[in-house]
Amino acid sequence: MRNIKMLLQYDGTRYKGWQKQNQKGNSVVTIQGKIENVLSKMTGEEIEVIGCGRTDSGVHADNYVANFFTDSKMTLVEMMSYLEEYLPEDIVVKELKIASDRFHSRLNVKGKTYVYSIQNTKYQDVFSKRFAYHIKEELDIESMREGAKYLIGTHDFKSFTNLKVKNGKKSTIRTIRDIKITNYNGFVQIEVSGNGFLLNMVRIIVGTLVEVGVHKRNPEDIKEILESKNRENSGLKVPGKGLMLKNLEY
Amino acid sequence: MRNIKMLLQYDGTRYKGWQKQNQKGNSVVTIQGKIENVLSKMTGEEIEVIGCGRTDSGVHADNYVANFFTDSKMTLVEMMSYLEEYLPEDIVVKELKIASDRFHSRLNVKGKTYVYSIQNTKYQDVFSKRFAYHIKEELDIESMREGAKYLIGTHDFKSFTNLKVKNGKKSTIRTIRDIKITNYNGFVQIEVSGNGFLLNMVRIIVGTLVEVGVHKRNPEDIKEILESKNRENSGLKVPGKGLMLKNLEY
Repeated sequence: MRNIKMLLQYDGTRYKGWQKQNQKGNSVVTIQGKIENVLSKMTGEEIEVIGCGRTDSGVHADNYVANFFTDSKMTLVEMMSYLEEYLPEDIVVKELKIASDRFHSRLNVKGKTYVYSIQNTKYQDVFSKRFAYHIKEELDIESMREGAKYLIGTHDFKSFTNLKVKNGKKSTIRTIRDIKITNYNGFVQIEVSGNGFLLNMVRIIVGTLVEVGVHKRNPEDIKEILESKNRENSGLKVPGKGLMLKNLEY
Repeated sequence: MRNIKMLLQYDGTRYKGWQKQNQKGNSVVTIQGKIENVLSKMTGEEIEVIGCGRTDSGVHADNYVANFFTDSKMTLVEMMSYLEEYLPEDIVVKELKIASDRFHSRLNVKGKTYVYSIQNTKYQDVFSKRFAYHIKEELDIESMREGAKYLIGTHDFKSFTNLKVKNGKKSTIRTIRDIKITNYNGFVQIEVSGNGFLLNMVRIIVGTLVEVGVHKRNPEDIKEILESKNRENSGLKVPGKGLMLKNLEY
């Protein structure tokens, strides 16, 4: 039995996120579901794909890592061409490798980098609509950078997640290594890297920084929001279409 | 009555080209058709939109110029917000202006620039699929540039069009001002500018240059193909999705 590691790229526009969903009688289109279907047909086995993490509905990925176990005798090259032919246009396998039996895409992740894209111009470019959120009001990038500084480091990010935590059963402490904000011709990118992220965390962080960018909040407010450990104090969750899982570290 | 000039941008993926088509009983989705519908509802008049030229099925445009006449008393700002609300997501009006009564989007064009995009890597990036054609075989850009030189200038481009010309009723003579070919990280762009283009001309030129790029033809062959004035001697027409009408001169 081989453990096969896949490097994937997908346009999440028409999917309800990564994770397979079992709803009675309803078929929900997810990336994991699509890939498992194709791999199961390919190998004649019932394949379960282990992904590096969930991505929300509409979110994209550039270097998503997943793995699966198979007894199939197919070579990796044969698998690659099968997948190229049978996966839908919006999912691409960039690489297949044999991994050690102990490799686990989710449990072994040491770091993740997400990029959130915003087109900050009067009208949104037709060609960026699938992958960028549109904000008309001019964003003050310097203030956003200043606000972002308070988030770097190890903190309890309870204010920045929609995860419901019952009696502290799950930790909401995470480490953000860096937040880089760039503006190239009105195309703003917010790159957030850290050891792991809570449900909707990147999108709520970006939404809150955007409120700083339009001067609805001050950069220093971020510190208070963080310390309050209360989701009600942070900003809106920005749409999934602007978010891309960019890179993973193992 | 005002003559209103529009600057448009569209993602042509789901359209059968610019031009309205009248097929008995069948509704064909075209960009002109969509825009005329919305403008007619907006003004309460039956609006006819004059476009700067046809674009083929699947072809995109970044600065498409069109104009229409109206008696409506709406301000341009009111029109802009109406159009922003009611046009589909894949058509954007970038600008509206009052033009002189004599301005005609098609008849007054002095030059056009098209860009054809090719992703020249082993696997196509998910995010470029709507806007770039994929070629695996490595393209020899220098040879393509050398071949392209023969096309610059005023020539009879009969070999490079699918236009059926009966008894020389229409001229197939055009002037190509420049062809620029760039390769940025495997993303090849072929920019062709000229005074006007025949049916499928850019796509057949690109298809023929691609055959030079993969060494199926020599750069010097372009000269012979041009002189033969015979469509059978040129290359394949590359797909519409890689083509973008970039700019117009008046």
